[in-house]
Amino acid sequence: MTTSFPMNDGNSAYSYYNNSQRQKELIDASKDMVRDAIIGKLDVEVMLSSSHTFRIIELGCSIGPNTFHAMQHVVDVVKEKYHNIILEFQVFFSDHVENDFNTLFRSLPIDRSYYASGVPGSFHGRLFPSRSIHFAHSSCAIHWLSKIPKELLDEKSPTWNKGLIHYGTSNIDVVNAYIAQFEKDMEIFFNARAEEIVPGGMMVFISPFSSYTRLVEFFGSSLMDLVNEGKLDESLVDSFNLPMYFPSPQDMTKVVEKNGCFSIEKMELAYPKSKLVDEIDAKTFIINLRAVLEGLLINHFGSKIAEEVCARTLFKSEEISTWMKANGGKSCQLFVALKRK
Amino acid sequence: MTTSFPMNDGNSAYSYYNNSQRQKELIDASKDMVRDAIIGKLDVEVMLSSSHTFRIIELGCSIGPNTFHAMQHVVDVVKEKYHNIILEFQVFFSDHVENDFNTLFRSLPIDRSYYASGVPGSFHGRLFPSRSIHFAHSSCAIHWLSKIPKELLDEKSPTWNKGLIHYGTSNIDVVNAYIAQFEKDMEIFFNARAEEIVPGGMMVFISPFSSYTRLVEFFGSSLMDLVNEGKLDESLVDSFNLPMYFPSPQDMTKVVEKNGCFSIEKMELAYPKSKLVDEIDAKTFIINLRAVLEGLLINHFGSKIAEEVCARTLFKSEEISTWMKANGGKSCQLFVALKRK
Repeated sequence: MTTSFPMNDGNSAYSYYNNSQRQKELIDASKDMVRDAIIGKLDVEVMLSSSHTFRIIELGCSIGPNTFHAMQHVVDVVKEKYHNIILEFQVFFSDHVENDFNTLFRSLPIDRSYYASGVPGSFHGRLFPSRSIHFAHSSCAIHWLSKIPKELLDEKSPTWNKGLIHYGTSNIDVVNAYIAQFEKDMEIFFNARAEEIVPGGMMVFISPFSSYTRLVEFFGSSLMDLVNEGKLDESLVDSFNLPMYFPSPQDMTKVVEKNGCFSIEKMELAYPKSKLVDEIDAKTFIINLRAVLEGLLINHFGSKIAEEVCARTLFKSEEISTWMKANGGKSCQLFVALKRK
Repeated sequence: MTTSFPMNDGNSAYSYYNNSQRQKELIDASKDMVRDAIIGKLDVEVMLSSSHTFRIIELGCSIGPNTFHAMQHVVDVVKEKYHNIILEFQVFFSDHVENDFNTLFRSLPIDRSYYASGVPGSFHGRLFPSRSIHFAHSSCAIHWLSKIPKELLDEKSPTWNKGLIHYGTSNIDVVNAYIAQFEKDMEIFFNARAEEIVPGGMMVFISPFSSYTRLVEFFGSSLMDLVNEGKLDESLVDSFNLPMYFPSPQDMTKVVEKNGCFSIEKMELAYPKSKLVDEIDAKTFIINLRAVLEGLLINHFGSKIAEEVCARTLFKSEEISTWMKANGGKSCQLFVALKRK
């Protein structure tokens, strides 16, 4: 273990970001030397040979520790299968640029058996060089849409999602707008991954399924409680919609087949036992959802309303417990394994 | 451009970090499915073929914007040389895990022509898979030692650096302790890079040179002012030493040759014009140094003394200007280009 000496962070008055002019001068002054070294000395042809690095990406890694858990599992299984080949592993943790990579990096397991990288950017677009990835994994992430379907923002249309924040109990126009956005997003997603993943490489998704549409609506009903008490304007709730679509096997089959670059190796709905559901621990469940939804609530309603809504939803834990008890069996997930043709 | 929906950051009560048990359950529940997909479907032999990705690492990237500037330059020059080969570029920005990668990622240039990754970890150790890197770059970073030479912490030895915070005007024992630490660190550094860089791959260093030892001592003299005013215990200053060694061409030649894995393609001292020195802008210079040193000062002396020392050093800008005017010509840098044998 060596000690670390970080520069001043952030971008305030005394940050390195705003105070590194001299270091820039050193780089500028060396530009020609760097250039000469590359032009005169580098021979790219001899270098681009194959390696024994197995590259794994986690799309929508968020912060951890789940992502470390998932990645170590993939590494362990590949090692188990190819124990006779000396492989090295490189894992790319990828998420939006606003993800808290600092916390992710600071909590990386010390005993990991892979080289770790962070890759900022949306998976609705290219993130990696062509044919550089052998295995892609994504858990609880592909249900995030790139944006709210634009039809939901038209107050005069049947897709104005009055009194609701998601599509679960909405009319068919709203549901179709969500499906259309999901299909558009997945087309972009698959086109990007088709470039990045080597032929024979694989991709697995784990996605929550439809029971979540009801659970997030408990937050919606807390918002409507505030409307009914005159503390919040209803149009603000009507114009708030969660950018998530939980695909069915049929939805997923359709987008994979439309793209055409991947074969479906496995697709199934699973009904994993949930410790949270078994113990009807609605409080933990709601706090889990708060960690996911709070940023969206703050963006749309401000911190004060967001805090109030989260607190009020927690008060509903008994009602939520009852619902979970009755519907626990329906709490399920979609598992998909694809292979690059 | 897609919108982003980050989870709650940090690790406070409502963070995703502490509230993602359900997501973990989904991953756990899919472990066997992931395993089956890998065991049953993945064929690693057909995948590990060569690619046209040129991989560049920036060692000690810090926060930017300098590192973006340097990396784009390397990419541009490689493109210029190999305009007939379709290459894709992947840049790995690497620094200690405490580096502010969030700010780095959020300020990535939109018009960059490479895929960006962040790699947390000390360059005094392995960071990348074997033979995976084609070009390594490090600017204003390799002079950072992994730690203070331990001999400097012995109060009864001639290496107790009394009244000073660096080796510039110290006795020969202190200087030798710094050199020995530098040599040890570079041996570890070169052994790691020798594994990571492909045969024919290159490494360039840009390192500040010796005039910095005097400049940082202006902070030392501010500390001693506080000692002389009875506001600070001298032994606290004596036990504070900056973990930096500015190598000479001779120092560098010695460590490269001892390692034996790299050939020296170029090594020279350069005397770049400094806008800051030309305009004798000591204030900007001192604030630049503050962004680098403040964390170390806070760690050793606490925030209050660190603030006082930085403020007092700024008051010395006239004296520093005079020194810079007289010694500007000596402000120089070491440039080194190495090739993996």
